[in-house]
Amino acid sequence: MGHRIPRDQRVTTHVCLTARALGADGVYVSDAHDSQLADTLRKVTEDFGGNFTVETGVPWRSTITRWKNSGGTIVHLTVYGNPLPRIIGEIRRSDSDKLIVVGSEKMPGEVFHLADWNVAVTHQPISEVSALGIFLDWFFKHRLREDFPGAKVRILPSDRGKRIVRSD
Amino acid sequence: MGHRIPRDQRVTTHVCLTARALGADGVYVSDAHDSQLADTLRKVTEDFGGNFTVETGVPWRSTITRWKNSGGTIVHLTVYGNPLPRIIGEIRRSDSDKLIVVGSEKMPGEVFHLADWNVAVTHQPISEVSALGIFLDWFFKHRLREDFPGAKVRILPSDRGKRIVRSD
Repeated sequence: MGHRIPRDQRVTTHVCLTARALGADGVYVSDAHDSQLADTLRKVTEDFGGNFTVETGVPWRSTITRWKNSGGTIVHLTVYGNPLPRIIGEIRRSDSDKLIVVGSEKMPGEVFHLADWNVAVTHQPISEVSALGIFLDWFFKHRLREDFPGAKVRILPSDRGKRIVRSD
Repeated sequence: MGHRIPRDQRVTTHVCLTARALGADGVYVSDAHDSQLADTLRKVTEDFGGNFTVETGVPWRSTITRWKNSGGTIVHLTVYGNPLPRIIGEIRRSDSDKLIVVGSEKMPGEVFHLADWNVAVTHQPISEVSALGIFLDWFFKHRLREDFPGAKVRILPSDRGKRIVRSD
């Protein structure tokens, strides 16, 4: 939420790359349309596989409301929420589709009330990028995903060098 | 590494906040002096406690070399490295002081050789912000830290609202 061009473009790109790498199915970038951001992510997904979707310029309130109306639940990452370790079990046990909401400091108070869970990844000033990464890693029980179907580019483990396999 | 003003200021701030929140003792920001960044972190540490140190404008090569010469080891987070789950045990067992090196895409090849461990937080394009957060969370065995001595501001868990305690 709260994406502004150009100020937030790099941070929002980091949010989207993190979402994809840690196993999210896609992102909605609210408020500002940003075709450059969408292109960057489309290119990464073309190369590295998977089916990550990006929609930019969507209005946040109706996106959240539509999600809830179709049976999904909302996780809002905020320093003011309940501690991740205390609440993650309850979130994992819910089998609803989850929309994770992140943004910069100034979140509308309404979001705290629309959220099913307000979750604090520490009660310290942190980054929405790392908060999202850590949340998704905990949510998926620390099983870092490496299976992205259709990848044209694969990076292989290496002690010192760069091992890249291309299959196009 | 590779901090540029103004292009990287927000992302580097996210890196530093993540380092502090996840339990690092301090950061070196290489290459560019950035007093604004140092001030932001000083203010956060004054308010939220702990002894986080920030040094900006340090040359990366001599910082790494000095660290190694005084018995410390280097962890370089890179998509090309060995998978985090495979290598974290070995890193945790080493009781040397650790310097975690992160930066943008274009890392000098030398860094891969100076590093004691090249570690991939997934082999997918990700963000150095979330890679650092996830690495530190794994390194500290998922015990998210909440004890920052001398905090003037504390945020308390809440289901919906904002609960802030100030003690100045």
